Amino acid sequence: MKIVVKFGGTSVADIACIENAADKVAAEVQRGNQVAVVVSAMSGVTNQLVSFCGDIAPDFDAQEYDAVVSSGENVTSGLMALALQKRGISARSWQGWQVPIICDDVHGKARIADIQPEKMNAALDGGQVAVLAGFQGVTSDGRIATLGRGGSDTTAVALAAALEADRCDIYTDVNGVYTTDPRIVRKAQKLDRISYEEMLEMASLGAKVLQTRSVEMAMKRNVPLQVLSTFEDGIGSDLPGTLVTREEDIVEKQIVNGVTYQKGEAKVTLLNVPDIPGMSAKIFGPLTDASINVDMIVQNISQNGESTDMTFTVPRADLDSALDALQACPELKDTEIHTDKNVVKVSVIGIGMRSHAGVAQTMFQALADKGINIQVISTSEIKISVLVSADYTELAVRALHSAYGLESE
Amino acid sequence: MKIVVKFGGTSVADIACIENAADKVAAEVQRGNQVAVVVSAMSGVTNQLVSFCGDIAPDFDAQEYDAVVSSGENVTSGLMALALQKRGISARSWQGWQVPIICDDVHGKARIADIQPEKMNAALDGGQVAVLAGFQGVTSDGRIATLGRGGSDTTAVALAAALEADRCDIYTDVNGVYTTDPRIVRKAQKLDRISYEEMLEMASLGAKVLQTRSVEMAMKRNVPLQVLSTFEDGIGSDLPGTLVTREEDIVEKQIVNGVTYQKGEAKVTLLNVPDIPGMSAKIFGPLTDASINVDMIVQNISQNGESTDMTFTVPRADLDSALDALQACPELKDTEIHTDKNVVKVSVIGIGMRSHAGVAQTMFQALADKGINIQVISTSEIKISVLVSADYTELAVRALHSAYGLESE
Repeated sequence: MKIVVKFGGTSVADIACIENAADKVAAEVQRGNQVAVVVSAMSGVTNQLVSFCGDIAPDFDAQEYDAVVSSGENVTSGLMALALQKRGISARSWQGWQVPIICDDVHGKARIADIQPEKMNAALDGGQVAVLAGFQGVTSDGRIATLGRGGSDTTAVALAAALEADRCDIYTDVNGVYTTDPRIVRKAQKLDRISYEEMLEMASLGAKVLQTRSVEMAMKRNVPLQVLSTFEDGIGSDLPGTLVTREEDIVEKQIVNGVTYQKGEAKVTLLNVPDIPGMSAKIFGPLTDASINVDMIVQNISQNGESTDMTFTVPRADLDSALDALQACPELKDTEIHTDKNVVKVSVIGIGMRSHAGVAQTMFQALADKGINIQVISTSEIKISVLVSADYTELAVRALHSAYGLESE
Repeated sequence: MKIVVKFGGTSVADIACIENAADKVAAEVQRGNQVAVVVSAMSGVTNQLVSFCGDIAPDFDAQEYDAVVSSGENVTSGLMALALQKRGISARSWQGWQVPIICDDVHGKARIADIQPEKMNAALDGGQVAVLAGFQGVTSDGRIATLGRGGSDTTAVALAAALEADRCDIYTDVNGVYTTDPRIVRKAQKLDRISYEEMLEMASLGAKVLQTRSVEMAMKRNVPLQVLSTFEDGIGSDLPGTLVTREEDIVEKQIVNGVTYQKGEAKVTLLNVPDIPGMSAKIFGPLTDASINVDMIVQNISQNGESTDMTFTVPRADLDSALDALQACPELKDTEIHTDKNVVKVSVIGIGMRSHAGVAQTMFQALADKGINIQVISTSEIKISVLVSADYTELAVRALHSAYGLESE
């Protein structure tokens, strides 16, 4: 088998952690696998480098920011290669430009455009482990670009796709994907398998185990992705973690596989909005122009045919600029604007929903039984989200986790 | 004018130092100069990275060592570019492979083979300051190699030669080259000018202000080199430091320009060495094979035609392996070997020596007047070195500095 394994910052936090990670790689090699390793910076290093940039120039040039912060991964890749060599394994480090990993020139949050895997494949075929610095690539004019925070997940998936690897193992500080946050629900269960679509919703909705973009790419390029712990015994080839895979590879489809919550939302309510055609565009246009991501939207039915009410959510960090944009809108001069930061979005996710009725009803009933008022609802094919008062976060998550029978014995 | 300026580790030790160094560069730009900057790693960073490598694998692969330690300079070059941009100056960082700085594949102590300056020259012509990461280059097969400790001086001189710069300014933590160590002789004088040849002898003989290889290269490529302080007011274009230049550019040639001392030597005396042809080769061959650099050698005249005595010096760190090599030598089975680590090599250096007699006599008389016994003497065209007991180090340096009239008023 050919596999890509990725170690995040906490998995390579110091020399002892790098040695531990090298043991996992060595075990895969001993099993006869070809292995490419993707590493993050040692934890704390990237933050240090980012703060150096900020100390010099708060609005720094992203090209130079990239040249600086990419060095953290370069260090780890060299050290990992040394740790593997010490174990008698042929290994070498690769920096993004050496592969090359070609990306666009949106410095600080670049996207991988192309990976030319010929040289690395030749090294793998020659029995050498390739250790790639994650989170970075090179632009067409030879500058270093970074993929944005958490970008090493994306590097790993993109590399797995380019190498046509059989699997991409993401080693992290948790041992898999859980039905919900185990800090809230003690009986949360580790999932053995989950579909890309579900993982994508869960990553978008607050489960921080994988970067959203890496899941999107895995789905698009059909890379089997596995999440597992660096700090437990066992390696990816023994499948102890959670496999993220195609829906058709999951035999027993759960109606609901996960319950997530997302703080950091703010609710905006507009009362007495003129009920005229094109009004929504007039409200949301300026928010889009200000790069504010509007999430859940509900509009009440107009009572008198002249005015209506509207509620939506925005990221809490963007609330002030959202209000500025709305107050500058002449059509809203007679509109009252209310805001509420004390809200949380709670979601249930499952591919089985597609073929089962009554999923939403179970959710609404469970919340009603606890006296939790639903403020806004939004749904997609495989998830239902509700906005409730943040005071009820834990209560709502526990009630839903239980209502869908997700608790372990 | 086109100038290259280089800042060492203490000159870019932290963000405040980088800002200070950026001020110097900005002042050169305001004077209408084209400027390329070469930077070292922030002080302490390289040592940290070296110790990471040593922690993992004491006998590390030099290719990976280079991939790791070169990252320190990458960070500084990006940060310096940001600091210049903040001052309203167009600037960008360059890593060795981006120029490219092509070097051989002797990882850990590579030599620069070629610099292709076209891209950087185009940037300079476009009014942009180039900030190059020192100490590194790229091999013909695309791996990163470092030039050995202190290699950023060499990078700066090589870049100045490739760019055909008018001057190369080495900013450091002292304000120039002194007639001797100011910690020993309070009245040591800063030299305004010194020839390449003298600087080369002084660098080889213990003055640590410039790396020997960088002086060699400056001499060979005829790059005017200036040593000056980062921490004093003024910039290179006002010539406040010491200019290292061609002999013919120095109008008033001093007979002696500097007094240096070098600890870390050990003396080996062989008594009763068979006086047969080829004996020297039999003694020094094994030392050469063990990569031991034998320095001063004297052989006494054979008294009886059968045996002779011989004295030479080796680096103190190599003394044990030197003894091993000598004891393995069958021709020396009847030879007594004495060693002495308590010695120092004191030298006087000056291009004026070539045309003046009596320079050695002044030296010998000055030492004799202080009762200092000379153990070994070696000379070259522009220097005289003597080995004396290390107990007399300061006394000998002060006596010679005074005897040649080098003291300031």
